[in-house]
Amino acid sequence: MTRFALTVEYDGTPFMGWQRQAHGPSVQQTIEDAAHTITGEETVVHAAGRTDAGVHALGMRAHVDIARAFAPFRLMEALNSVMRPAPVAILGCEVVPDDWHARFSCIARHYEYRIVTRRAPLTLAKGFAWRIPTPLDRELMQEGANRLLGRHDFTTFRSAHCQANSPLRTLDRLDVTETDDGIMIHVSARSFLHHQVRSMVGCLSLVGQGKWTPDDIAAALAARDRAALGLNAPPDGLYFVRADYP
Amino acid sequence: MTRFALTVEYDGTPFMGWQRQAHGPSVQQTIEDAAHTITGEETVVHAAGRTDAGVHALGMRAHVDIARAFAPFRLMEALNSVMRPAPVAILGCEVVPDDWHARFSCIARHYEYRIVTRRAPLTLAKGFAWRIPTPLDRELMQEGANRLLGRHDFTTFRSAHCQANSPLRTLDRLDVTETDDGIMIHVSARSFLHHQVRSMVGCLSLVGQGKWTPDDIAAALAARDRAALGLNAPPDGLYFVRADYP
Repeated sequence: MTRFALTVEYDGTPFMGWQRQAHGPSVQQTIEDAAHTITGEETVVHAAGRTDAGVHALGMRAHVDIARAFAPFRLMEALNSVMRPAPVAILGCEVVPDDWHARFSCIARHYEYRIVTRRAPLTLAKGFAWRIPTPLDRELMQEGANRLLGRHDFTTFRSAHCQANSPLRTLDRLDVTETDDGIMIHVSARSFLHHQVRSMVGCLSLVGQGKWTPDDIAAALAARDRAALGLNAPPDGLYFVRADYP
Repeated sequence: MTRFALTVEYDGTPFMGWQRQAHGPSVQQTIEDAAHTITGEETVVHAAGRTDAGVHALGMRAHVDIARAFAPFRLMEALNSVMRPAPVAILGCEVVPDDWHARFSCIARHYEYRIVTRRAPLTLAKGFAWRIPTPLDRELMQEGANRLLGRHDFTTFRSAHCQANSPLRTLDRLDVTETDDGIMIHVSARSFLHHQVRSMVGCLSLVGQGKWTPDDIAAALAARDRAALGLNAPPDGLYFVRADYP
């Protein structure tokens, strides 16, 4: 058995999410089916993060164990060839030790969230950004974001379906920057709760529109109650950017 | 009658091109049909450039004459509302004099062409860039591009279906720049022949790959013969960016 680490880019639009589902296509199944076509083996592909339906990835990391001998470059080329025309691409492939685990060895995860502020509907960015029709106050959003940095109980920002044992997480980065056509939010942590990034972005958008103050963010966090959440942002603007390993 | 100038963004993927066609959807028809729904009037929408199937626009300019009284902002909002879910958006709308013509008054047109250089298939940029699997030499491409600047007979770089009276055009800008994931080419001229941008980009890609020299570009131009064309680039990477008026 050889363990291969994969770097994966995908357009999340047509998928039910990363994880294999009985009721529709997933990124995981797309890669596993391709690996089966190539090797004849039943494999399980483990990812650093199990993104939701409609969420994209620029550099998801994953691993797969394969018995048949393969040069990493040839395995990558074969997977990319078999997966067409599904919008999933293997950008990197390398042999890793048997105890390297895409999910459990990961020490940091980085996301981006793209917001376009304009009245007109999106065309080229449709499915790839969240459109908000009013201007956003970047500085106020950053002030609100700063209230979330550090180690907290993020129960308010956690989906009811979250399976994590603990609601405690340490948020290392939550940067709100201006772009040509709106706002980009950069988020980093060792790990996240289910819907945590989208829930934080949703509340920050309320601050940007003046509907919430930065203090309301702090109060929502302190409430430790999902009912205190202002808004969950849609998946369209969310990108898994990078996973770090020791 | 009031003449309205429109600024239009569109994803060209699902369209047969700008121009109304009997055999499939077009951007022109999408806007004309929406104007008809709103006003009950039969209108013709004229554009600065009639882009091909699959070519995108960030800021196409167009005009339309409407008898019914409309504030420009309300007309824009109504068009955007009626056109959904077609990937066409009106980003600007203003009243212009009756002799202002989106096509004939235009004094400069600006395009961008996006190339991504990598082996893996495109996912997020699928339909929005041309993928070339090998690295490109930007400096050589710029050297080749410089041979095309100025006033020339561009017969080699002109589609057999081009309806222009003369093959003479003055190319004002052809800049080859590096991006994070490949090459962006910026092109400007008062006007272009049919397929001129894609034909120039196709030949420059051969220079970038070392299959042609910059001198081969000059020779192809001098040949004034469509048969001397090296390659016509696909529509996916082409964007109409802006039109200028006096």
